[in-house]
Amino acid sequence: MPFKIDHIAIIVENIEEALNVYRDALGLPLERIEDVPAEGVRTAFLPLPNGGGEIELVQPIQANTGVAKFLRKRGEGIHHICLTVENIEAAMRTLSARGLQVLEETPRVGAQGQKYVFIHPKSAHGVLLELYEKPGSDE
Amino acid sequence: MPFKIDHIAIIVENIEEALNVYRDALGLPLERIEDVPAEGVRTAFLPLPNGGGEIELVQPIQANTGVAKFLRKRGEGIHHICLTVENIEAAMRTLSARGLQVLEETPRVGAQGQKYVFIHPKSAHGVLLELYEKPGSDE
Repeated sequence: MPFKIDHIAIIVENIEEALNVYRDALGLPLERIEDVPAEGVRTAFLPLPNGGGEIELVQPIQANTGVAKFLRKRGEGIHHICLTVENIEAAMRTLSARGLQVLEETPRVGAQGQKYVFIHPKSAHGVLLELYEKPGSDE
Repeated sequence: MPFKIDHIAIIVENIEEALNVYRDALGLPLERIEDVPAEGVRTAFLPLPNGGGEIELVQPIQANTGVAKFLRKRGEGIHHICLTVENIEAAMRTLSARGLQVLEETPRVGAQGQKYVFIHPKSAHGVLLELYEKPGSDE
């Protein structure tokens, strides 16, 4: 079950202000800004060089979502780490059998058909892990 | 100023218990466990495949350190992200000039001569960033 880091998600108050740091000061390229109304967020993706994963900035744009509550309670900061897997159903079965609390019975499916699922931070020592199916990710 | 993720540091109560998840359930290889008395921590390094950075588990072994206080206050979880830079002094000058709060005037030097420095999370939207000099890291 080989993993790569797909992205590290950082919750911020305001993406434009955060871009002052992550794009302009650190010099990361901005790939795209995308609104995801279904999840109540605006997101910005900044890939690291050499396929080393992406920084994803996440700004809540609705008040009643998990990320909005996270921001109110804990302030800005790292929200989750997303790891790629070759086959998400197989990974979910394996990790459940090994005692990790996978948050859904079947993967969630995003707007472009991508499959993903979260693992409860209580079962991963305080880290919210996301699994993201990316065929070919173990090559 | 190209970056790669060198490691993501996760503070845990007990490294052996955390290895049940990160080594045994997720299947990451354990590279080494290392005590760093100067920093009051025990660390375990689990590299991700394909040069995709490492997971570093950090267990406080002294009560009066920053990581011990972090654990008492916030519980287990992600502590910092470490990015490699080709030339740390140059990166520190550039980032300071761009408004980031670099925590030291000169880099800290580890037991094996490695140079590193932290950036205050208030200047990076809640994320504690470490820079680590790794010559050749922009190749």
